[in-house]
Amino acid sequence: MGSDGIRACVVGATGFAGAEEVRLIIGHPRMTLTMITSDREAGTPISSLYPALLGLCDLCFETPDPDVIAARADVAFLAVPHTASLSIAPALLERGVNVIDLSADYRLSDPRVYERWYGATHTSPALLDQAVYGLCELNGPGLRDLAARVRGGKAVLVANPGCYPTATALAAMPALEAGVVVGDLVISDAISGVSGAGRKPSAAVHFCSVDESVTAYGVACHRHTPEMEQTLTQAAGRPISVVFTPHLAPLDRGLLATVYLPVDGSVDAAGLQEIYERRYAEAYLVTMLPPGQMPATGSVAGSTRAQVGIALDTRCHVLVASCAIDNLGKGAAGQALQCANIVLGLSEYDGLTVPAPVV
Amino acid sequence: MGSDGIRACVVGATGFAGAEEVRLIIGHPRMTLTMITSDREAGTPISSLYPALLGLCDLCFETPDPDVIAARADVAFLAVPHTASLSIAPALLERGVNVIDLSADYRLSDPRVYERWYGATHTSPALLDQAVYGLCELNGPGLRDLAARVRGGKAVLVANPGCYPTATALAAMPALEAGVVVGDLVISDAISGVSGAGRKPSAAVHFCSVDESVTAYGVACHRHTPEMEQTLTQAAGRPISVVFTPHLAPLDRGLLATVYLPVDGSVDAAGLQEIYERRYAEAYLVTMLPPGQMPATGSVAGSTRAQVGIALDTRCHVLVASCAIDNLGKGAAGQALQCANIVLGLSEYDGLTVPAPVV
Amino acid sequence: MGSDGIRACVVGATGFAGAEEVRLIIGHPRMTLTMITSDREAGTPISSLYPALLGLCDLCFETPDPDVIAARADVAFLAVPHTASLSIAPALLERGVNVIDLSADYRLSDPRVYERWYGATHTSPALLDQAVYGLCELNGPGLRDLAARVRGGKAVLVANPGCYPTATALAAMPALEAGVVVGDLVISDAISGVSGAGRKPSAAVHFCSVDESVTAYGVACHRHTPEMEQTLTQAAGRPISVVFTPHLAPLDRGLLATVYLPVDGSVDAAGLQEIYERRYAEAYLVTMLPPGQMPATGSVAGSTRAQVGIALDTRCHVLVASCAIDNLGKGAAGQALQCANIVLGLSEYDGLTVPAPVV
Amino acid sequence: MGSDGIRACVVGATGFAGAEEVRLIIGHPRMTLTMITSDREAGTPISSLYPALLGLCDLCFETPDPDVIAARADVAFLAVPHTASLSIAPALLERGVNVIDLSADYRLSDPRVYERWYGATHTSPALLDQAVYGLCELNGPGLRDLAARVRGGKAVLVANPGCYPTATALAAMPALEAGVVVGDLVISDAISGVSGAGRKPSAAVHFCSVDESVTAYGVACHRHTPEMEQTLTQAAGRPISVVFTPHLAPLDRGLLATVYLPVDGSVDAAGLQEIYERRYAEAYLVTMLPPGQMPATGSVAGSTRAQVGIALDTRCHVLVASCAIDNLGKGAAGQALQCANIVLGLSEYDGLTVPAPVV
Repeated sequence: MGSDGIRACVVGATGFAGAEEVRLIIGHPRMTLTMITSDREAGTPISSLYPALLGLCDLCFETPDPDVIAARADVAFLAVPHTASLSIAPALLERGVNVIDLSADYRLSDPRVYERWYGATHTSPALLDQAVYGLCELNGPGLRDLAARVRGGKAVLVANPGCYPTATALAAMPALEAGVVVGDLVISDAISGVSGAGRKPSAAVHFCSVDESVTAYGVACHRHTPEMEQTLTQAAGRPISVVFTPHLAPLDRGLLATVYLPVDGSVDAAGLQEIYERRYAEAYLVTMLPPGQMPATGSVAGSTRAQVGIALDTRCHVLVASCAIDNLGKGAAGQALQCANIVLGLSEYDGLTVPAPVV
Repeated sequence: MGSDGIRACVVGATGFAGAEEVRLIIGHPRMTLTMITSDREAGTPISSLYPALLGLCDLCFETPDPDVIAARADVAFLAVPHTASLSIAPALLERGVNVIDLSADYRLSDPRVYERWYGATHTSPALLDQAVYGLCELNGPGLRDLAARVRGGKAVLVANPGCYPTATALAAMPALEAGVVVGDLVISDAISGVSGAGRKPSAAVHFCSVDESVTAYGVACHRHTPEMEQTLTQAAGRPISVVFTPHLAPLDRGLLATVYLPVDGSVDAAGLQEIYERRYAEAYLVTMLPPGQMPATGSVAGSTRAQVGIALDTRCHVLVASCAIDNLGKGAAGQALQCANIVLGLSEYDGLTVPAPVV
Repeated sequence: MGSDGIRACVVGATGFAGAEEVRLIIGHPRMTLTMITSDREAGTPISSLYPALLGLCDLCFETPDPDVIAARADVAFLAVPHTASLSIAPALLERGVNVIDLSADYRLSDPRVYERWYGATHTSPALLDQAVYGLCELNGPGLRDLAARVRGGKAVLVANPGCYPTATALAAMPALEAGVVVGDLVISDAISGVSGAGRKPSAAVHFCSVDESVTAYGVACHRHTPEMEQTLTQAAGRPISVVFTPHLAPLDRGLLATVYLPVDGSVDAAGLQEIYERRYAEAYLVTMLPPGQMPATGSVAGSTRAQVGIALDTRCHVLVASCAIDNLGKGAAGQALQCANIVLGLSEYDGLTVPAPVV
Repeated sequence: MGSDGIRACVVGATGFAGAEEVRLIIGHPRMTLTMITSDREAGTPISSLYPALLGLCDLCFETPDPDVIAARADVAFLAVPHTASLSIAPALLERGVNVIDLSADYRLSDPRVYERWYGATHTSPALLDQAVYGLCELNGPGLRDLAARVRGGKAVLVANPGCYPTATALAAMPALEAGVVVGDLVISDAISGVSGAGRKPSAAVHFCSVDESVTAYGVACHRHTPEMEQTLTQAAGRPISVVFTPHLAPLDRGLLATVYLPVDGSVDAAGLQEIYERRYAEAYLVTMLPPGQMPATGSVAGSTRAQVGIALDTRCHVLVASCAIDNLGKGAAGQALQCANIVLGLSEYDGLTVPAPVV
């Protein structure tokens, strides 16, 4: 690794998640951004797409050549559409570059599930075994095992979680792990800001389509559903099915998941609150709110933090657990940096401690 | 009734629902607004609170004296906080004024349920028997019975539904009535614009609190819950419990309810679509969307219309039904005018045919 | 004309202004929408582009054939990009169809000015002499002359004003007409909602570009500048130059022009207020606000109304005059309907009396 | 000074500017936040008012006792309403605490001007001579002189500029300093986000008042006017008058000033561009945009940066200069920290290098 700390490359830095990754790396005390890539915008300075970076990052996009990346970076963040990582990730790993993949390509352990939901053949299924799903608050031990491998000179692969699965998991995990949830069906009803829909112009993201309107989309068929089921099943230790409804709201950034978990009568509100507080006591980036308080996305937008709040419907025996994240922060670029910190042996929260704007 | 058509008074016209009622009555071809009242703002022109009415309504608020109202109005719309109608409504009815009550005071048929959820004693429980719950698409026959009573010279009372119960009922009713829902638990997850929180300034409705943020509130304790349960129970013909989570989003107007209904395996998506289309075929103000399309609040904001869309999660056997309304339109003032039209013998949709802004 | 009143066609109804025209015609008591056209979307129902029209307008777009339009419409509203009207307008006029042109093609009386600012040759300059610029509060007499021609069986052409010129003119006209403005330079600083940028998706109108941001654009080169100079010169009776800066703000609809007019010392604030009040005393769609109050776009959005307020900077002898309109209302489709009402001999405000949403 | 670097206190940390100051100090590598004060909220944790600070700042508000502050802080940031600093600032200076005053109390060098515009008697006029106006890009030398005094053991006072004057000055300064502006009248037309209006709830900052609306306010009488005139006069070396019109737009944060400067014919667009580029070549926090590009507030919101762009109206010989800042960043808390860095001998940009969110 370079004398200036870790050298990082962001592959696919034209999109929102990639650009946010750039921003976070620039502010990281022990990481240096050496390269950004784009298939289409090679030669263009990133600040011409993102004027917020003017005076702060004068890099231009380059074409994503694996040899060049390997020569200049210790870690590559892949902020590319799904299927693109199927070829880039192996090429980089072979060349010794650690990979944090923000696409969906290595999140699902079963390639048949991937193929069913993403409608594409998984061309590097062998990597699925070594990939660790980077929800740090769940898979911290697995990620730390990767750090040992990196110290041993091996390049590793982290599958960075999706935004909706992150918020849904943080809301549901403590109750599922504690065994207080009954039945095998969980409902996740979520609301996302528009940056989650990507930077590509379309009628759907025209200001006049989105402003002053909320709507559900992808109902009963959103690709994040199997990822949620995989994570919640891991947390519960038994198969969990998820009905998932995402909504679009007029926000730039921010994602709220409200999760419905039927619970047995043995646990009351105070007991659930204690379960959640204990679960997140050591999780610096996750704040469990006091009883009676529910999270707002505005409190985490611009940060890598999550806030979780719960309420028990004692009449119907349903736990309503709500988690707010920034879809580009804890939901994408921030969590990717957290993963990178862990596997590269840095302090887990390096570069992730700056508070979000208070307003 | 006056020679210029129906004479109307809006009691409590300083709030958003009352002011919207004023706007709608002004545009009504057969109704004349003769009086607006306010306890605190007597003498103030309404256009100084609502500059959108400048040049269109030069009425000033007056104190709400029942005798004066009775002398000047055939119908009174009560846009007052709950408990206020407990005394005004009887006073007006005694004086022969028909009452459309936008408060919650006469919505719940059981006064004990009212007292449990609203924390107030119901001081005119005798009126509950005569009040008709004004969800026109459910209780059209009951409302038309009131019209006969009005023709017979009797003043009548309509309990105008709440905004969340309206959207939840329109989303859930067809499936419940058709008997395809299994179990007795329905989840309603809703998102409302800020006008639903009222005109009173507070930290919670400060622009900087609401903008760029979504949050749940009133979880497991919102007062609209028993109203939903009453309506869904009526639709299903058996007791239905509701877990209800409202969210606040950065919109002026608009409300979306996403309702989760477990269904049995006997019905498929096409069958459900047909159930819904048939149910709303004659409902001019309710548009059932084609398969695959979900409603957006932006398409109904500024109107009295509702749009409903459904999707069936065939893996989990859960019907996801979504209804978009304007919380001040079909969710309050517009529905109140629809009720008034019916009971006063006008055409049901008089004054309610103007399309919402297309953008 | 048809027995059901005026038959209207909207040419170019896929865009925001055209769709708003559709909405207004639907609500017009004496006009019937018989046809809507689009080059690209022929066969598509307009409600699939604008779900707000579901249940209210079941027309499909047709290709804009002048013969067909002439057979089915008395008046055509051209909501097309500039240069498109250069050929459609003459074709319709020849066939006896009255034309209200919302494009810029017939607004500038001097074709050389058109060619300089729009970079296109004016191919029907002969029509410029007969076209009347449709700022009704300025050119009411000229428009009424057209009505006489229509009664005489001749088809007429109205050049509907641009959005920025409308607001700038309404703010500046009274002072210029009264002769109290000194010098020949007027500054117009304006803020528009995003619908003014059109429906075509682009990076510039992506929600995440516009939301939470304001910016100037087209500075010192916006095409509405010569139109403003022409109108203000007409009002002043001497040449007026305009420095014009438009800004984009995160609104769907609404436009505010703040105009700076140096005034001589002979007039004080009360005198100016009186000049403005008198000027707009008979203008139903223009409300002059009381002293000390400035207009907000939120009070006119969704309507065809304008609000004007002024403040005199007595230290610097500069009058600050501000006008709020809806860019799609008084700034486009609403004003076009007002023009159509006048030239077709209807009441000037037919279909334009519905108040905007109060919130 | 403490061994952990500079110890800082924020006086009046309940407001938006104070809370943003807290956020910035938390992220500062060489400053420690030791105390926050509030008259009314003593005992309340700041995170209960600003949930974004949960897990990041566990300080509670304390009453602002000068002796306690002096015992615990090297520098105090006064984020209080005007007139409040008239008594607090002297008390802290006497006790050796350096003061960065975000209020308006020490900005105007002439106490009579203060009294005329603020309607209050200036009770500590003697301090006006020692206060330095903290627009770092203009008064860098003066601020550095203060640093020498601090090293000599003396407490110093910085008057932190207002938000509108900061943006107006950054837009106009280069042209005024270069002597290319003719006449003595400058127009500043500005648009601000709602956080500029403060945290106190009112009808004016209700979400439904502000959302989807823009309006001018304080026209010809806003208190920032004399501050602008003082700064522009200093830059020009001759008296400059300012006509100032602020507007409110539906943004949380962000401020855009568009300034109109008549210029003589001797300078062209390229020459002006060069003047501006040279002027800000060394100003790390100010980015001069390339020709043809105008700044957007979205590119600086959440940061302490400013962006400036210009366009020359060659027809009218008027320079249009536009500056975007975050009203709470470069317009308040960020600039205050920049001042503190300079006077306390730290690197000028410590804690101010974190890029704003890219979206």
